[in-house]
Amino acid sequence: MTDCEGDASVDLSPMELYEKLTAQGDKVRILKTEKAAKADVDAAVELLLKLKVDYKKITGQDYKAGCPPEGNEASQDNGPDAGDNDEDQVDPWNVSTTSAKGVDYDKLIVRFGSSKIEKDVVDRIEKVTGQKAHRFLRRGIFFSHRDIHQVLDAYENKKSFYLYTGRGPSSEAMHVGHLIPFIFTKWLQDVFDIPLVIQMTDDEKYLWKDITLEESHHFAHENAKDIIACGFDVKKTFIFSDLDYMGSSPAFYRNVVKIQKHVTFNQVKGIFGFTDSDCIGKISFPAIQAAPSFSNSFPQIFNGRADVPCLIPCAIDQDPYFRMTRDVAPRIGYPKPALLHSTFFPALQGAQTKMSASDPNSSIFLTDTPKQIKSKVNKHAFSGGRDTVEEHRQYGGNPEVDVSFMYLTFFLEDDEQLEKIRKDYKSGALLTGDLKNILIETLQPMIAAHQERRKQVTDELVRQFMTPRKLDFGS
Amino acid sequence: MTDCEGDASVDLSPMELYEKLTAQGDKVRILKTEKAAKADVDAAVELLLKLKVDYKKITGQDYKAGCPPEGNEASQDNGPDAGDNDEDQVDPWNVSTTSAKGVDYDKLIVRFGSSKIEKDVVDRIEKVTGQKAHRFLRRGIFFSHRDIHQVLDAYENKKSFYLYTGRGPSSEAMHVGHLIPFIFTKWLQDVFDIPLVIQMTDDEKYLWKDITLEESHHFAHENAKDIIACGFDVKKTFIFSDLDYMGSSPAFYRNVVKIQKHVTFNQVKGIFGFTDSDCIGKISFPAIQAAPSFSNSFPQIFNGRADVPCLIPCAIDQDPYFRMTRDVAPRIGYPKPALLHSTFFPALQGAQTKMSASDPNSSIFLTDTPKQIKSKVNKHAFSGGRDTVEEHRQYGGNPEVDVSFMYLTFFLEDDEQLEKIRKDYKSGALLTGDLKNILIETLQPMIAAHQERRKQVTDELVRQFMTPRKLDFGS
Repeated sequence: MTDCEGDASVDLSPMELYEKLTAQGDKVRILKTEKAAKADVDAAVELLLKLKVDYKKITGQDYKAGCPPEGNEASQDNGPDAGDNDEDQVDPWNVSTTSAKGVDYDKLIVRFGSSKIEKDVVDRIEKVTGQKAHRFLRRGIFFSHRDIHQVLDAYENKKSFYLYTGRGPSSEAMHVGHLIPFIFTKWLQDVFDIPLVIQMTDDEKYLWKDITLEESHHFAHENAKDIIACGFDVKKTFIFSDLDYMGSSPAFYRNVVKIQKHVTFNQVKGIFGFTDSDCIGKISFPAIQAAPSFSNSFPQIFNGRADVPCLIPCAIDQDPYFRMTRDVAPRIGYPKPALLHSTFFPALQGAQTKMSASDPNSSIFLTDTPKQIKSKVNKHAFSGGRDTVEEHRQYGGNPEVDVSFMYLTFFLEDDEQLEKIRKDYKSGALLTGDLKNILIETLQPMIAAHQERRKQVTDELVRQFMTPRKLDFGS
Repeated sequence: MTDCEGDASVDLSPMELYEKLTAQGDKVRILKTEKAAKADVDAAVELLLKLKVDYKKITGQDYKAGCPPEGNEASQDNGPDAGDNDEDQVDPWNVSTTSAKGVDYDKLIVRFGSSKIEKDVVDRIEKVTGQKAHRFLRRGIFFSHRDIHQVLDAYENKKSFYLYTGRGPSSEAMHVGHLIPFIFTKWLQDVFDIPLVIQMTDDEKYLWKDITLEESHHFAHENAKDIIACGFDVKKTFIFSDLDYMGSSPAFYRNVVKIQKHVTFNQVKGIFGFTDSDCIGKISFPAIQAAPSFSNSFPQIFNGRADVPCLIPCAIDQDPYFRMTRDVAPRIGYPKPALLHSTFFPALQGAQTKMSASDPNSSIFLTDTPKQIKSKVNKHAFSGGRDTVEEHRQYGGNPEVDVSFMYLTFFLEDDEQLEKIRKDYKSGALLTGDLKNILIETLQPMIAAHQERRKQVTDELVRQFMTPRKLDFGS
């Protein structure tokens, strides 16, 4: 899986973006001239429209062919309280928003064409599993889905399904945000008692980053230790490095080739924004992230069955991969995977800034000491409080932009306590320092416990998790 | 490996080609606007120039932007004695020429930038091996090379090298022309006593043809039997299906990804003529044909060494793959493979027509009976003889366009006998019927012996050849 990093059109200057738009317009005309397939034309048009939105966002002007941008210093930085007209950018390599509240997820649901997880979905999951819903579901952190009712229907009819999630191992350093899909996936595995496959896309990280194959493969193994430390059941979980598994499973490669036959360059260009200057490895990679969505990629687990339904919990930025996967699935005779999408985990500096593995102060890392956690939260966590204690007491703080409060919605289990914190902070009864202390006291034991569990993860245990084998799971 | 089949720009109407050219011109401008990498721009320009040559060939006019072609019925078919101005088309999916003598190979050497195999090269191979050169070398059937002296230098210095060739298994039916690279490769294996890897690109055939993975994989195994029947030594030969080997060798996949990181879409577009409407499988496939050129793709054979030189005997239409491979090699720290290029095997109907697996009369198939061979040669082999016996006796025949004579240059071992046939046919002493009889008597026992050897090839023997394993070879 890819992280939310990399280049996007919003990093371009207005003139560069203007030229890119003009070129894309030319490409659309060429496709139409060549009478290309409708899907290809649509994909190119989709990218064109996306660039136009970016252009307007950056320049404040509508794009007009033949009219280069006038003011190069337009409203590029309109601060944390920017208007709602701006469209957030969300793709596997870039997530950006100008709002301190973070990405507008309701708009994203409309744009991506997924479904919101309303209360009825949460209720149904509780009914089907007989368990209280995970706090990520109760609090809308997993906020969107595709076809979740289909896997629940199957489960109610005593048909099993399986879970698939993953990680792009771009460095040894993982932060708490990286754990979100794994914490939730472990809960799903426990309540449904189903098999889980976890893809480490070390091939992808080699293709996208300036690292060697050996480094990427090493990161995959190191990251696997942190993932295992989340408590997955070795009897039900298969973790694999692409670099290893592609070379040990003819069934996996067959599915990759099948998908690659049914996706054109025009399509990946429209979905992922690839250009003619991208390497052919990037261009064909989406098929490799798609393949684990089909159960016969794992004959050792599913006895060669191709029809076991798949549920993918992931951050919403990974959805483009699985939109493509769901588009291809019926054409190669496989069921479409279902999805559960999470929101993004905010950087300490605020929901509109990026976390970066190269900036240790942008998040809480899984290797941080209690002292580092305390210092980072106190120094760097963006506060929704007022400038003075007096003002705060009088007018109250804003939990909606306060990063400490956001982090607590992820990690504090007690709903009532969380609601009380929210109210007290908003009313001014709870000061920013108090709020930060609650977060520090929540994170310190959580991270320490993770470190303790990770220490128990031996190389032998990693080897067990990463060996292709039969898994034990419910009837 | 790909066969000489498929679509090419020369199959387009003048107007279609005009539109394709216009679109390609636009693309070049876009690349320049986007300030794309020089290699990418060069690749796009190379394709543009190629299209312009095709355009002139088809329309007789120079391409002018904004001026669509006038006469749509220009000199499209100028017969077997067409002038020398036309440029032959040679790429992995299409070989076409308008000359009955076949492709102009001297021009091809200049165009591809390879080196002609002159007498000094043949002499050196004889000196190094202590063996008389194979008739394919003596007669210029293997006519071109890249860096052959480097592998001969290495060999003289007691350093080993290895052979790599392959086949695209597009059907069960193989004809005698398909055996040319294998007959020659077996000779090379014998005289140098070196290991050989043979790639069956069943993934490629699945991507290019309307066949299933299972069919393609089945063809790979059936074709392997015909290849084994050429007499390869199981102790020195590894035959592999891509669909199987990719899924059983992490080292092979690692090299594929390495190559894919270092080749852009612009480059494969320039080299292979891919378009935005091609599937991502085709676009990334060239890396899979490139990877066996590097010895660490076969750790079981070379103990993980990456520096064992590789020599690739193949038909010249495969050269684009290996031009790309040689371009990438130094950038990923591997030696460039050396090449020996063969001419094409002509169809029975003449050197300017295509052989086709779907037209049984276009060649001699490896399953033909003696009766079928006799009938095909007599009925379909294009003759360089005169219209009447009297004229033939008086003016003589033309062995240069006579397909029976061409076939004899491939299969008749005795140089003196071949030269006598040529002279007698040219003088008129030898009639077409006599010449055809000599060919029939050469082919019948050759094909019968092949069929006998193929019958001995058990599934168990195929399994042995296709199992990744250590090979035994010279010191």
